[in-house]
Amino acid sequence: MDYVYGPGRNHLFVPGPVNIPDQVLRAMNRNNEDYRSPAIPALTKVLIEDVKKIFKTTSGTPFLFPTTGTGAWESALTNTLSPGDRIVSFLIGQFSLLWIDQQQRLKFNVDVVESEWGQGADLDVLASKIAEDKEHTIKAICIVHNETATGVTNNLATVRKILDHYQHPALYLVDGVSSICALDFRMDEWGIDVALTGSQKALSLPTGMGIVCASPKALEASKTAKSVRVFFDWNDYLKFYKLGTYWPYTPSIQLLYGLRAALDLIFEEGLDNVIARHTRLAKATRLAVEAWGLKNCTQKEEWFSDTVTAVIVPSYIDSSEIVRRAWKRYNLSLGLGLNKVAGKVFRIGHLGNLNELQLLGCLAGVEMVLKDVGYPVKLGSGVAAASAYLQNSTPLIPSRI
Amino acid sequence: MDYVYGPGRNHLFVPGPVNIPDQVLRAMNRNNEDYRSPAIPALTKVLIEDVKKIFKTTSGTPFLFPTTGTGAWESALTNTLSPGDRIVSFLIGQFSLLWIDQQQRLKFNVDVVESEWGQGADLDVLASKIAEDKEHTIKAICIVHNETATGVTNNLATVRKILDHYQHPALYLVDGVSSICALDFRMDEWGIDVALTGSQKALSLPTGMGIVCASPKALEASKTAKSVRVFFDWNDYLKFYKLGTYWPYTPSIQLLYGLRAALDLIFEEGLDNVIARHTRLAKATRLAVEAWGLKNCTQKEEWFSDTVTAVIVPSYIDSSEIVRRAWKRYNLSLGLGLNKVAGKVFRIGHLGNLNELQLLGCLAGVEMVLKDVGYPVKLGSGVAAASAYLQNSTPLIPSRI
Amino acid sequence: MDYVYGPGRNHLFVPGPVNIPDQVLRAMNRNNEDYRSPAIPALTKVLIEDVKKIFKTTSGTPFLFPTTGTGAWESALTNTLSPGDRIVSFLIGQFSLLWIDQQQRLKFNVDVVESEWGQGADLDVLASKIAEDKEHTIKAICIVHNETATGVTNNLATVRKILDHYQHPALYLVDGVSSICALDFRMDEWGIDVALTGSQKALSLPTGMGIVCASPKALEASKTAKSVRVFFDWNDYLKFYKLGTYWPYTPSIQLLYGLRAALDLIFEEGLDNVIARHTRLAKATRLAVEAWGLKNCTQKEEWFSDTVTAVIVPSYIDSSEIVRRAWKRYNLSLGLGLNKVAGKVFRIGHLGNLNELQLLGCLAGVEMVLKDVGYPVKLGSGVAAASAYLQNSTPLIPSRI
Amino acid sequence: MDYVYGPGRNHLFVPGPVNIPDQVLRAMNRNNEDYRSPAIPALTKVLIEDVKKIFKTTSGTPFLFPTTGTGAWESALTNTLSPGDRIVSFLIGQFSLLWIDQQQRLKFNVDVVESEWGQGADLDVLASKIAEDKEHTIKAICIVHNETATGVTNNLATVRKILDHYQHPALYLVDGVSSICALDFRMDEWGIDVALTGSQKALSLPTGMGIVCASPKALEASKTAKSVRVFFDWNDYLKFYKLGTYWPYTPSIQLLYGLRAALDLIFEEGLDNVIARHTRLAKATRLAVEAWGLKNCTQKEEWFSDTVTAVIVPSYIDSSEIVRRAWKRYNLSLGLGLNKVAGKVFRIGHLGNLNELQLLGCLAGVEMVLKDVGYPVKLGSGVAAASAYLQNSTPLIPSRI
Repeated sequence: MDYVYGPGRNHLFVPGPVNIPDQVLRAMNRNNEDYRSPAIPALTKVLIEDVKKIFKTTSGTPFLFPTTGTGAWESALTNTLSPGDRIVSFLIGQFSLLWIDQQQRLKFNVDVVESEWGQGADLDVLASKIAEDKEHTIKAICIVHNETATGVTNNLATVRKILDHYQHPALYLVDGVSSICALDFRMDEWGIDVALTGSQKALSLPTGMGIVCASPKALEASKTAKSVRVFFDWNDYLKFYKLGTYWPYTPSIQLLYGLRAALDLIFEEGLDNVIARHTRLAKATRLAVEAWGLKNCTQKEEWFSDTVTAVIVPSYIDSSEIVRRAWKRYNLSLGLGLNKVAGKVFRIGHLGNLNELQLLGCLAGVEMVLKDVGYPVKLGSGVAAASAYLQNSTPLIPSRI
Repeated sequence: MDYVYGPGRNHLFVPGPVNIPDQVLRAMNRNNEDYRSPAIPALTKVLIEDVKKIFKTTSGTPFLFPTTGTGAWESALTNTLSPGDRIVSFLIGQFSLLWIDQQQRLKFNVDVVESEWGQGADLDVLASKIAEDKEHTIKAICIVHNETATGVTNNLATVRKILDHYQHPALYLVDGVSSICALDFRMDEWGIDVALTGSQKALSLPTGMGIVCASPKALEASKTAKSVRVFFDWNDYLKFYKLGTYWPYTPSIQLLYGLRAALDLIFEEGLDNVIARHTRLAKATRLAVEAWGLKNCTQKEEWFSDTVTAVIVPSYIDSSEIVRRAWKRYNLSLGLGLNKVAGKVFRIGHLGNLNELQLLGCLAGVEMVLKDVGYPVKLGSGVAAASAYLQNSTPLIPSRI
Repeated sequence: MDYVYGPGRNHLFVPGPVNIPDQVLRAMNRNNEDYRSPAIPALTKVLIEDVKKIFKTTSGTPFLFPTTGTGAWESALTNTLSPGDRIVSFLIGQFSLLWIDQQQRLKFNVDVVESEWGQGADLDVLASKIAEDKEHTIKAICIVHNETATGVTNNLATVRKILDHYQHPALYLVDGVSSICALDFRMDEWGIDVALTGSQKALSLPTGMGIVCASPKALEASKTAKSVRVFFDWNDYLKFYKLGTYWPYTPSIQLLYGLRAALDLIFEEGLDNVIARHTRLAKATRLAVEAWGLKNCTQKEEWFSDTVTAVIVPSYIDSSEIVRRAWKRYNLSLGLGLNKVAGKVFRIGHLGNLNELQLLGCLAGVEMVLKDVGYPVKLGSGVAAASAYLQNSTPLIPSRI
Repeated sequence: MDYVYGPGRNHLFVPGPVNIPDQVLRAMNRNNEDYRSPAIPALTKVLIEDVKKIFKTTSGTPFLFPTTGTGAWESALTNTLSPGDRIVSFLIGQFSLLWIDQQQRLKFNVDVVESEWGQGADLDVLASKIAEDKEHTIKAICIVHNETATGVTNNLATVRKILDHYQHPALYLVDGVSSICALDFRMDEWGIDVALTGSQKALSLPTGMGIVCASPKALEASKTAKSVRVFFDWNDYLKFYKLGTYWPYTPSIQLLYGLRAALDLIFEEGLDNVIARHTRLAKATRLAVEAWGLKNCTQKEEWFSDTVTAVIVPSYIDSSEIVRRAWKRYNLSLGLGLNKVAGKVFRIGHLGNLNELQLLGCLAGVEMVLKDVGYPVKLGSGVAAASAYLQNSTPLIPSRI
């Protein structure tokens, strides 16, 4: 009945889906309910308010789609744009590539700004394009906040500065799938028009909820956007928001209660503390990588991701073998290298509801796998480097002081 | 933390989402997993084979979308048709109406064949249209097998006979949301090209999986269909099926294990026994309605639905008050009347993993609510009629003999 | 893996173990924890305070033993009495018989006061014995509040009156296994010295916690009681209470969190409302039995139990066949007749977290089984009688008004 | 609702209660059932057979008491001995001390053979006593296989050899609480008369089941043993075994299904592989302790425990502070030093369903705590030593090859 038995816990360090806290599992362990009873709208109403907090928005309108990140992308695009619209999009890794593929298949006219994998979005090119675009033919900027394939975080504040500098009215659409609830993210401050995430990332839920948050400007754009959409249409949701019944079609009861529990955990820890924890665990991971004598796929510190680290392996090693072996021998799930970096990098996801010793267990496992596949790592070296940092920086658990 | 507390169990008799069996809840009570490990593809492979059995197809190809029935509709349409295509669609209640709305918004040219709510699809009109359509301008017939709003089941075999009689090549698309796994459904025998259902109906899972099954002819059509689609595109799935990794984007790990458990239960009981149980419980419900002196919204026996019964209330009663009161006083969840029949009918869903005494508890509750709202029902009359039938027809539980 | 599959829910109407509410199942769905961390003592401390409320005591001291009701009995006796001590005990059914058996095996000198099964404790005999016992040779009165085998509730207030009338110092020990949290129970007011219950009864938890509550007088008695005891010794607990660590040996972490959730549900509903609900459901059950033309095993109304009803079947029917068939055909679990009433009665447990429609489903099932085994019941008659009463007396669910 | 929140998982390394595998949690996530239906006896019957395998006995009779290890002790003693009986018992740490305390309170005449804490049972003394006891006044030898307080494993085979050498008929009673299912244990081969364990130890279940296994000789002894017992009496069980209903009183339904799942996991891994895994993780732990420059409380290698390691801290450190801080800062639960070694040792439990990376995470945590409290440990040193060993010795997970 269980396909993946091994003694002890699976060590889940892919950059999504991530570990679900026990409190969330408990909250989701329940029968279905009538979503048209007064209870579910009451629950939804508060959830929608609370979800704004993780986007750091007060003016945005969230939509909780029964879908994945890919669906959330589609919702962001089709509700704000019309076929043929010119948009600027940055190709820096597998997930930005997939989003661009979607943008093209949805018939937008995409200016692809490509960077080497391991680099961030080339914002100089963006600046030029915006500067040149006096006639405002560019309708939207699409950018992935955190490219999960390479562990690269883009600078969202700079994008806003560029747009503001040229007083350019382009919509600003952000994929926050592997960033929101983990990295510093400020929808209102950065003037983001559509931001989106998926439940199975830093929110630490099962897959199945794509959360899209629209600014007033995005909502306005949706009134004239001509892209065909039904399932992903904001308007159907808005109609039911107004009615107070909230759902144009059946939501997952379990994910609603799960989201409630997940948000409760985040607010109890404090969103800023959650983000600080991600910074801490990421720093520790990078120190370990350095101690192992390996290179981060991310080429400059300014782009270092605090949710996933892509580690480059020596050319004589196939990184897929590392991932396979980690799973087969140590019950450790690492992320594969994708597309251009397949075989060349493996990835350590360090996002979601996670703590120091879980990470150190993972790092100890990576060391053993590296040795298994013939890389001359000094066992314990990465753990030593990481724990030297963590021992200095980990706070007491507030509820236990 | 729990919005809907009341002593004892909630009696869930809306026609979806339905009761989840404990075995399925147990199977879903689990952490996330890496969906790129060998375990999830191995699980998926068998699921896809097993899902064919509930569609009664050997040649069909199932897709397990992380979506709802509405998304499954969209997938069925956009993968097989092009904007402007002429299709025939039957309006017989709220769900067929919503599907037609979707069809129109997706830019198809819809011949709407309307019936009075409470009647089945007018297949005579279909026959005329097909007969007249010598040039095969009709590209598809879209029909809801079971209209959940009125409790009307359409005759799918007749649709096939009409198409065959005129050798008409139109695609045959069927919404089986409240029928598959509960009513007699034969995808191959009836030459259905796309059939679809949602996890929260007779499969008795949480909401979140839209299952779409495509015939070889539908797959062929998908190669030329020009409707814009990305998230719902079969082709992305087929690419990953070929690779053996199965998922173009992240699935819900919990729903996959849940589906495994749900199918195990269905196969253990026997799909035909499951269908016979639905027939039995539906018959019992209709006998109770008759005993109460109330009318079935479904106008003729040939259309009686074995998954949901819509009951017409006397004009001096507001059916919404029945639903509200059932929930507030007896922890009983009944279905509201929708749209044209709002206030006029309430609905008893009797689908999914359910047994005789659960239904009789519900019927006893309906009797008390009817009395509460001023209808002069004889308490016990419906239960008496239903149990007279059930006491004669209920088999022993096979595993207990 | 699951031995008892049948479609739909099991209808659990044995008088224990009873249905566990979903909130409690969720609370218990958790890993072990270190019971020596600060968290478990903090949890325990509040539990012990809150448990007093269900005994209606402020001066009592509760002990949460990892055991069953049988163990709780043993703890009550061995901590307060010495071998050879004279005690008065009432034999009125199988459970009082088992307790007397234990008392005798523990070497007490038991005055057994026997009544016909179906009658309550003969308190006239008690009065005589107490009146005669000028020298106070009687050290304790042992009485089962609610005899689960026959559905007989004894009058605890009268016992106290008798003792007080004669100013007799005997300890007053009460088995409240199938009464506490369901029937009116007042430890302090009635001067009960030891009261006990089991987690799987009206508390609606799994089996595994025997709760014993001792008055100051009982604690005093424990200092000189010479019965040999270790596992069940209150003194070991008291030592750890004083230390603030609470546990002389490992408790079940899951049951502690489960008890927390169970008490929260009871307090949220209101203990008096919980008791009123039991009264209501019991009355409805008795009305159904009457409507079926069957007799209650309990011979007088003053003894009617509000937690379990034992129903006498006609002599040509074997009540075991009713229980067997209910389980095999309708997934309905009823209680067997035990010992003297084996084959002669079946029992309907109506205690714990239960509501009206659950009970009516059960009653409808009993009717069908009665017909199955050849009793000429009028189907629907019991349900009609019960629902006529319930429709008049069931309050709105407070959280839903 | 949750007292112990901290981000991420709790790292549970007390020597019991231990981590419960997810498969077992799932199996236990269920409603109560009627334990008198045919299902529970059928389940119990197989469990009793399968439990014999973990004791390595074919002739023994297991009893699954709803109790803890302390209750299992009491059952072992009271069923086989009479007050005043002379027994030999070994005091080597807190748990053997508590057992001896129980033996004395149960009125046996105990020859206490004491060793320094950190040493094993003094079997030379046993040999002398047995040699001298020509008249067979010694009725039983009581020994703790694994003293959980000091991490000392006694040599059970030698005890048998001594008894055999002198052809002494004393009963041989063994506390296997922290050994069975983790250490090499051979009830039949070593001629053990009563062996016992608790569910929350290597079986990796919640607390609440005390498993006692009796040899034919022990069963024979129980017929004449005069110790007073009721709840713990084997005879009540044997009566119900004969009837095929198995339970003299209500068992925990959840623990029965949990035990089924736990045994399935153990048999799937292979009991010998489970034991080898414990050996491996223990060895790794000891290598880490050595690398930290700390001493094992266990004085000789022959006594090293493979389920728990007690680590001596320098005299200037309070080991309780280590345990407190581990919990407060790193969500790591370690075992306190008890009684004589309070403040002097902390304990790492490495038993139950556990794997390499979980242990390495724990060891990394211990290193940081040691540094926190002022011990000049080289961070990473213990992890390095442990992983050097584990990287060489860990097998592939069989189900993943």
